[in-house]
This record gives sequence, C-alpha cells and structure tokens, in this order.
Amino acid sequence: MRFAVAQSGGPTCAINASLVGVYEAACELRSHTHTEILGVLHGIQGLLDEQFIDLDKSLSDADNRALLCRTPATALGSCRFRLPDPQQDDSIYKKVRAILEKHGIDAFLYIGGNDSMDTVAKLSGWLAEQNSPIRVIGVPKTIDNDLTGTDHTPGFGSAVKYLTMTLSEIIRDSAVYCVPSVLICEIMGRDAGWLTASSCLLRANGETAPQLIYLPEGEFTVEGFLNDVREAMKTHKSVICAVSEGVTPPDADLFRSGVSDAYGHAYLSGIGKYLENQVRSEIGCKVRSVELNVMQRCSSHLASATDLTEAAACGRHAVTLAAQGLTGRMVTMQRDDNSAEYRITFSDMAAKDAANYIRTFPKAWITPAGNQISDEAISYFLPLIQGEVLPVMENGMPKHFRF
Amino acid sequence: MRFAVAQSGGPTCAINASLVGVYEAACELRSHTHTEILGVLHGIQGLLDEQFIDLDKSLSDADNRALLCRTPATALGSCRFRLPDPQQDDSIYKKVRAILEKHGIDAFLYIGGNDSMDTVAKLSGWLAEQNSPIRVIGVPKTIDNDLTGTDHTPGFGSAVKYLTMTLSEIIRDSAVYCVPSVLICEIMGRDAGWLTASSCLLRANGETAPQLIYLPEGEFTVEGFLNDVREAMKTHKSVICAVSEGVTPPDADLFRSGVSDAYGHAYLSGIGKYLENQVRSEIGCKVRSVELNVMQRCSSHLASATDLTEAAACGRHAVTLAAQGLTGRMVTMQRDDNSAEYRITFSDMAAKDAANYIRTFPKAWITPAGNQISDEAISYFLPLIQGEVLPVMENGMPKHFRF
Repeated sequence: MRFAVAQSGGPTCAINASLVGVYEAACELRSHTHTEILGVLHGIQGLLDEQFIDLDKSLSDADNRALLCRTPATALGSCRFRLPDPQQDDSIYKKVRAILEKHGIDAFLYIGGNDSMDTVAKLSGWLAEQNSPIRVIGVPKTIDNDLTGTDHTPGFGSAVKYLTMTLSEIIRDSAVYCVPSVLICEIMGRDAGWLTASSCLLRANGETAPQLIYLPEGEFTVEGFLNDVREAMKTHKSVICAVSEGVTPPDADLFRSGVSDAYGHAYLSGIGKYLENQVRSEIGCKVRSVELNVMQRCSSHLASATDLTEAAACGRHAVTLAAQGLTGRMVTMQRDDNSAEYRITFSDMAAKDAANYIRTFPKAWITPAGNQISDEAISYFLPLIQGEVLPVMENGMPKHFRF
Repeated sequence: MRFAVAQSGGPTCAINASLVGVYEAACELRSHTHTEILGVLHGIQGLLDEQFIDLDKSLSDADNRALLCRTPATALGSCRFRLPDPQQDDSIYKKVRAILEKHGIDAFLYIGGNDSMDTVAKLSGWLAEQNSPIRVIGVPKTIDNDLTGTDHTPGFGSAVKYLTMTLSEIIRDSAVYCVPSVLICEIMGRDAGWLTASSCLLRANGETAPQLIYLPEGEFTVEGFLNDVREAMKTHKSVICAVSEGVTPPDADLFRSGVSDAYGHAYLSGIGKYLENQVRSEIGCKVRSVELNVMQRCSSHLASATDLTEAAACGRHAVTLAAQGLTGRMVTMQRDDNSAEYRITFSDMAAKDAANYIRTFPKAWITPAGNQISDEAISYFLPLIQGEVLPVMENGMPKHFRF
C-alpha cells in the first residue's frame, strides 16, 4: 500500500507529531505488507505540482522523528487552497486523481483544520463517485479547537499551555507597580473562544487573574467592558483582561483591518489595541495591550506532552482507517466521561460533517455576566496541558527539524 | 550590620536572582557578625512609606529561594520615582535618612537600571555630604543592556534567550506557505539596539533569518527599508526583519503614541505595525508584524542559567561592597578578553558614572549597509544565553514565588 501525507492550514505545535504518527504507523504495516509512504509539500497545492518527497530518507532515524515532534509549524509546508464545487468544475479533481494514480498512491492523508476537511470531504466524495479505490482521510489540527465531533483538536493543548505560561508571567510583570493598571491580552480565535476561555485555567493554580474573559460567543459592548474594568479595579490593583480576537463590539469597523484571506475570512486585528485606547481615554489609568500573535501556534518549546502524544495517535489512527479501506473520514478523539481519570479513545466521523462547521464554546460555561468562565471548563481544559516536552537545544538555542 | 534591599524599574527575569544573591550573601555574614536583612516593597517609594518586610520568613527556605529565582518581575514590587536634585530640595533626602536611621539600616542595596543608579548616586552623595555612615550600593539590571561600565547587565541574557527561541519558532511558522512573505518583529530597546542586534545569534545555528536587522544606532529611512526588503525577497521566500522599537524614521510622528513616562521617556509603539502597513501598500505581499512586548522581559521559563547565576553573583558582590564600607558604587561585570573561555569577574564603579548614560550598540558591529550585524557580535552575545533553567510546574502550569 502506498500512502501520501500532506499538511495544510495554519501551523500548530502538534501537526508535525501527527506526521510522525502517520509515518510510524505506515512503517509498522511493512512487517506484513509492502508499504510506502510519501510526503507531499505544500498540501493539495503541492500535490497538483507533484512536489513529493521521500520521508524514509530522514524519518527512518528516530532522533529526527523526535526532533520533528519538537518542531513548530508544518515541516512539509502548507497551503490555503480551496477546491471548487465538483458539480461546477471537476477538472482539478481529474488532475488530482491522475497525479495520485501516476504515483500509485492508494491513500491520501491530509492533516489540517476545518478548511482542510472540506478538501477531504470533496475529494473523497468525487473519487468515490468515480469508483476510484483511492482513499482520503483527514487528521484534525487547529489551535482554535473549533472542529465538531471531536472532544478537542490536536494543537489546541499546546496553544493552551503556551497561553497559561505566558499569561502567568505577564500577571507577575503587571503586578510590580503601586499604581492601578489594566492589561488587555488579545488571544487568537476568529470564530470560537476556546483558547481565550482556557485562560480560566490559571485559577487552578491560585491566580485571580485574568479577572475578565471575553469570547466571541458572549455579548460584548465597549460600555459593558469599561464598566466591568471599573468594577474589577475596585478590588484588584492590576486587572488582566483576556479578549478573543473575534470579539466584535458594535463599533467594530473602527479596528477591522479590512483584509481577508482566500476563504473570505476577515483578518481581525486590533481589538486589544482598540480596548487599550478606550481604557486610556475613558478610565485614564495605566494600560497596555499585548497581542500574543503567532507565538500561540508556534511555541513548541511549551508544547503539551499530552497534545503531542494524542496528535501522533491521531496520525496513526488515520493510517489504520485508510488500511481498512475507509475514505472521507476524519479522525476524532472521544473522552470517556464515565472515567475519573482522563481517557481518550480514537474514532472517526464523516469529514463532510466536520468541514465548514464551527464548534463554538458552550454558552453554559460562560458566566451570566458574560465576562468569566465557569469551573466546569477548568475540568475540561486541565488534562490537555499535562506534561512538558523539552526542546532540543544547541548553543543555548532550539534545534528544529527541516526536510 | 543591617541591610535593606529594594528593586526598581522595569521587570526582568533575573532581578529576583539578584535579590536571592543579596539575601544569601548577607546570611553568610551571620557566621561572624550579627546581620539582618530587610526587604523594602516598591523601591524608594516604598521606603518613604516604610514598607519593610521580613525576608527570613520566606527566604530562609532554600526551595523558596530557588522558586524566587524562577519567578519573573520584581517580587518586592517596583517603582518609577525620580529623586529631585538635592541642591534644589533635600527634604525627601532628610526623610529617607530619618527612615533608614529609625530602622537601624547600615546599607541600602538598590537593584535597578540606569534611573535607579541615579537614585543610588544622588542618595549616597547626599548621605556622604551629611557625614552619614549609611551606604548605598546599586545592583544593575536591565534587558536593554545599556548601562555603561559593565560588560553586560543581568536580565539581558534571559531576554536574548527568549528572543532567539521565539524568533526561531516564528521563522518556522513564517516559512510554511509557498507565497512570498515578510514578517516584522518589533523588539524592545528604547535607545539602544542590543536586544534587537542579538537576533543575529540565530546565524550560529544555521538560520539565515532575520535577514534584516535595524537598530536605533543605525540610519533608517522607510525608503531604504523597502528597498532592503525587495532585495531580500529576491533570494528568500520568507523575509524576517528584526526592528528595534527605538528605530525612528523621519516620519516618526505618524506612529508615536505621544504618551510619556515620569522620566519624560516617550512610550514608543507601533514601528512594527507602521512598517507592516508600508510593506503592504508599497510591496503588496503577505506581511505581518509581531510585537514581542512584555514577554521579552518576563519569560522566566526561558531564563538563561548564565544570566541568573551572574545576577545572583552581582547581588552577592553588592553585599561585599557594603560590608567593606563602600557607598555610591554600582556592581559591574568584566569579561576577560584574554581568555578563550568566557570568564566574568565582578567589580564596581561610581553609580553616578552609570546613571543617566546610555551605552549604545557599537557602530563597528553594524554592517555598512546598516541592516545586519557582524559576526563579532555573535561571539559577544553567545555566552550570555548558555544553560537552561526549568520552571517549577504545577498542574501543567508554572509555579511562581510571591511574598
């Protein structure tokens, strides 16, 4: 059996661990059947350009695989490329099929977020209609944790671990002066507030900050925000606010950048800076905003061991599904709610049911005032950040894997 | 002998290690003389309010001291408070002296940056003029590395270690797509480009990025910058620019925030965002700016072991100087240039010679084109980031010390 694996969408700290999982599981098949595993550079776009690479060359070495797991972003490169509706135009599908057949590929494994699952759904659907035996399986990843049908997504736990570490350090930094101050931390999450909400985890370590947490799922007005801040300042010298980039007050046009990506997603920027200016002009205290930016998705030195282990297991499971002859499926993780211990089993669902849907943060876990997260969420988040993965250091700096 | 120790100025990752050094050295004096050591909250401002705390209560425990060394920011709190010219008004000096005498303090140790050394110089000078035996000694700290008379400053090495780690991860993150892109990283350093310059260290690990590095010490025009970027894009798909926050193109008014602190320092913000917008409108490629913000000074989980060790040794040396009866001195570090190995000795200088002077980055280490740093700088920076200090973890999150 001949596998091809590619990565797509925005980087995470765990997407390379999934690649290692795919590679290792495919290699294990070799003991009883002829198996080959090719890497495809730059996702479906690179597939169209036949950018294949030999994974054995570097990944047959265990040290390289360990280093790859500790390397952020997509080692195979990525793309943002949306397949057209095959009903309208299937020429690109024919081209993909021809390339897959030319290279004798039986299964195409695609590691990505919900746009990538759209590719898995469309391509597998079209191939099946054409009676092609080529299978297409999706391995989830996104720091946004907004894919449906899975307890959480690989990449999310490491982003949460980065966030809790960084926020706890920022909290110390913000507390040094006598004067009252406000710090606004802008956190990634275009449509769903999972990552921002996870800042409530610091309560498990006795922190009172962030005192205010705002998600796109909640109601938000600048007036309400300023009142919340004034109220929090009565009891806290240093007030920390965690705000999702996707929070949009009614006067949102003031800070939207107006730029959008190939999927029509607006690039949001500046809610933190905008609220900083509001606090400065309306409250007049010391105020700062911090945008955690791409560090949220690429700080592999703070990866969660649990996350990397699960990401690799998702990659392994994808190989199993493909070997079983399944197609159009996305690997999922299911949490055993009846177990006192955290326990995950790996399953699968139709990629089309995951594609293009956003799993938002449960409103039941947002407090009635809309500015804090309930303790139930702590129980949900806490297992995802357990375990540290030390970076490989050279000259006091990190060493990364590169193909 | 009775010591009082306080911290002042902006936080660093090493300022608490200096506090531990002071505490431990003072405790060691106890074997042959009666010694007491008090903490003062919120620097000279807290001294005026008699905010003393008993350090023995928590710091007699070695685990607490180890945790304190791993805790960012000033555990004793900080202040930004400038003493007036004693010739004009010495009432505050009289008050400080009365408080120090009331509490029987023989030596006041002040851990801080160059504004704090101004306090050490003025206070020690005035006390000496009044024939007071009370000694005042300064322990340097700043992530800016801009104090004169010392090879480098405690706190700087850890900031560099954070920067190299984070930049190397951002470099991976930026390289994933096929499309040409520019990333602008805005780095702290109001007047001196030491920290920004240290991004050249990544070359020691085989990185080609950042391809462009701009310091306040160099000439900078937006036009020159855009030409540099266009040129770099000819050979690099992903161009990374490290830009000091203190870089001021002639059209600087456009992005200065207009806010300034108690010392009249302008709060700079937005050179990164400003250049991002320039690249977008003039070059039209994918572009992003990242502001590393307070994380540069508070990311203790990435502290340099060398930095923390030296910071503690500086604190120890301050106790020695005070015990010798010296006053108005700042601890310095001298590098043995004749040794093949990195070797530091601890010495001292007049605090007045350090106060209010800025040690800028050597122009000789900036390339003629003004957009890169020479290899000599790598040799200077490299020893400062050696050694890792693991954070103390609890529930997958860091544990910090708090008084």
